[in-house]
Amino acid sequence: MTNTFEKEVIRIKKQESFVHNLMENYDERKNDTDGISGHRIASRLAKLAEIGLTEESGSQRIGFSKEERAAKELVKVWMHKAGLKVSEDGAGNVFGRLSAKDNSKPAILSGSHVDTVPNGGHFDGALGVVAALEVVEAWKENEYQPKKPFEVVIFSDEEGSRFNSGYIGSKGMCGKYQLDELIKLHDANGMSFEEVLASDGLTIPGFKEAKRNLNDIELFVEVHIEQGKILENENLPCGIVNGIAGPVWYELTFNGVAGHSGSTPMVGRSDALVAAGKFIHELSNLPNRVSDTAVATVGKMHIHPNGINVISGKVTLYVDIRDTDIKTRNNLITKVLRLLASIENEFSVKIDKKELINILPVKIESTIQDILSESLRGYGIRPIKLPSGAGHDAMILGEDIPVAMLFVRSENGISHSPLERSSLNDCVQTIHVLKRFIEEIMKNV
Amino acid sequence: MTNTFEKEVIRIKKQESFVHNLMENYDERKNDTDGISGHRIASRLAKLAEIGLTEESGSQRIGFSKEERAAKELVKVWMHKAGLKVSEDGAGNVFGRLSAKDNSKPAILSGSHVDTVPNGGHFDGALGVVAALEVVEAWKENEYQPKKPFEVVIFSDEEGSRFNSGYIGSKGMCGKYQLDELIKLHDANGMSFEEVLASDGLTIPGFKEAKRNLNDIELFVEVHIEQGKILENENLPCGIVNGIAGPVWYELTFNGVAGHSGSTPMVGRSDALVAAGKFIHELSNLPNRVSDTAVATVGKMHIHPNGINVISGKVTLYVDIRDTDIKTRNNLITKVLRLLASIENEFSVKIDKKELINILPVKIESTIQDILSESLRGYGIRPIKLPSGAGHDAMILGEDIPVAMLFVRSENGISHSPLERSSLNDCVQTIHVLKRFIEEIMKNV
Repeated sequence: MTNTFEKEVIRIKKQESFVHNLMENYDERKNDTDGISGHRIASRLAKLAEIGLTEESGSQRIGFSKEERAAKELVKVWMHKAGLKVSEDGAGNVFGRLSAKDNSKPAILSGSHVDTVPNGGHFDGALGVVAALEVVEAWKENEYQPKKPFEVVIFSDEEGSRFNSGYIGSKGMCGKYQLDELIKLHDANGMSFEEVLASDGLTIPGFKEAKRNLNDIELFVEVHIEQGKILENENLPCGIVNGIAGPVWYELTFNGVAGHSGSTPMVGRSDALVAAGKFIHELSNLPNRVSDTAVATVGKMHIHPNGINVISGKVTLYVDIRDTDIKTRNNLITKVLRLLASIENEFSVKIDKKELINILPVKIESTIQDILSESLRGYGIRPIKLPSGAGHDAMILGEDIPVAMLFVRSENGISHSPLERSSLNDCVQTIHVLKRFIEEIMKNV
Repeated sequence: MTNTFEKEVIRIKKQESFVHNLMENYDERKNDTDGISGHRIASRLAKLAEIGLTEESGSQRIGFSKEERAAKELVKVWMHKAGLKVSEDGAGNVFGRLSAKDNSKPAILSGSHVDTVPNGGHFDGALGVVAALEVVEAWKENEYQPKKPFEVVIFSDEEGSRFNSGYIGSKGMCGKYQLDELIKLHDANGMSFEEVLASDGLTIPGFKEAKRNLNDIELFVEVHIEQGKILENENLPCGIVNGIAGPVWYELTFNGVAGHSGSTPMVGRSDALVAAGKFIHELSNLPNRVSDTAVATVGKMHIHPNGINVISGKVTLYVDIRDTDIKTRNNLITKVLRLLASIENEFSVKIDKKELINILPVKIESTIQDILSESLRGYGIRPIKLPSGAGHDAMILGEDIPVAMLFVRSENGISHSPLERSSLNDCVQTIHVLKRFIEEIMKNV
């Protein structure tokens, strides 16, 4: 009993300190206007942060895990309290729908995701969901009823940490997937896509039914942390996304020959990890040869058999390649393939290649960018436009319907890390802009 | 019931095919002499091989695991049947003692280990134990009683795959360890040294009592696969080890800054895996600058957080450095440290270094090498001498008592791999040499 009690005390203290930390330099007089509450936003971010809290004070809520589920259930409670009609589709996407003056009109959607990368931060995803819900809270307080239906949405497994394949929820809603590819997926514990769905109370037939008629959606708008330093350098709380870089992910398997590290002379070795090491290092020099926006990263890798005194027989690694421009991205891919061929040759290792995802860059419509600019100016913020290097659910939806994105300044540009942080002032100011933008969209017929 | 029955049928078939494979080109007429039986040796290797059999047809019997335990218990049964007095010390080392004409004399010990690296082979370790036991079987058949006590021995956890720290059993028997260092060890699942011992029915006080009076041991002789290609190139079944390379193991932690792979520009990244990749690749070029026998390997590595779309914030890797000569080994270590300093500088990552083991190279006494040469000649094999690049329990004992080692030819020099293989002819011929050698040692007062 004492133990449970002590744990509860620690939990409450951590939550209080998170809220306290956010509230410290918060300008209530300036920002707590028009029904929006900084304290409510901070408390909600804190409550989500403690689901899957890691030892390094990060968040770990992998897609379709019990932690992602717990976060969804918590947001559902808030949705209910805010008077939204809550539903969940067969991909685990959660919708909280606000009744409109004319419910026959296509809906405006806003939200993001509540899953995280392993040991990730407390803002990526969570902020976009809390932001959309805060707009509803403000409307409730202002007794404002929108002309068109509005839905707060949580998309499942955006990060792709479960299956090395992201945007599962938004792809499910848009019907943008090959079912035969999905059912071949396995997570790190060998669980199949179907087994993972089942562990979250979902099914394959249900997943197929998640596909929604996209004519019923007018627009999707997502608030997200920038995950870069442009806004910090420009000293701005938020900015307008003008395009989203499309990622290509490759799974590469380097096949060498295992052997004893003490008795196998250096000459004649076929060490998969040495070949992989050279690849990873040389890869980091390629993006700057094609553009300033191109990036290429190896963040995940498995070594086999992974023993101190064993030469690696097999290394599997994952390459993430992105650019906002399709031409320079293709140029980079060509360079990566050439590098692989030269390494195969130099180290006599065979490299198997498999493309996991390939998503086209998305352009944001200029009329939408104009309305966003007006919303920023209306709130006294100089509007700047910046590309998104990271992918988002808006990228998936953006291939079929109009999308908009607002970026919030990230401290030091850090994300996907326990150090990820945006100030509460910046978060709240962005939510004010989001609210103005949606209200403007609601006016248009 | 059917399922269990089917599994049993598969098990027996696998065992039969392993034995069949070994017996295929076996020259019974030449080698099954003097009480030694190739079929018994093959059957015993097959029975050990199926304990911890992996999908790739390798063996996985990590130190102090239930698989290593099962292998020890199986050998104990064989020891009993061979008329040996079986005992086990607090480090889990197993001894099968054969009564001598004069039991007050120091004993001759022979054996090896039954643990393996992850997904290792069926000869490394197991052959040395089966070989020592076969000498006893032959003596039993020949009604030969040795003048001095003889002990077949199994040392625990030689490979070090459990704690990244090998030779736990032989170190325990020789008292060559720092207890405060041992109790700090944790395995990959976070189990402490004490918890791991307990899982195998052992205790810390018992481990301390494993230290034996080394005056009671005259000599230790170990048969082991070569794990290299010298004997294959010389077309010889076995050879005499003239020295054992001492390993130094470092644990290196590269500390970078995690971030989003899509939104963090290449310029200004502090990617721990890129720095580690360059280190691994450049390390592979250093040994040949100091000697032909020096080796340096990274075989084990952990990436944190290990997500496709996350720049690595931390990479921990293990370096294994060896040479038979202490001077060139130290020379190599200096070069490795210089490389680390230059990488720290180039990538602005901080690298933490920790020495895990540092064992001196061992020279085999020339009188012992002479007796081994005679034993080889007596069996009609041209005696050649070769160094051991790999460490062995004989290396630990060799710092305090005389040791001898016989190497058996390895096909393609492969070891620590499911592909590890020595022909039965080579194994049996080496056991004949071992028997002659021990009988010669028994004659000396």
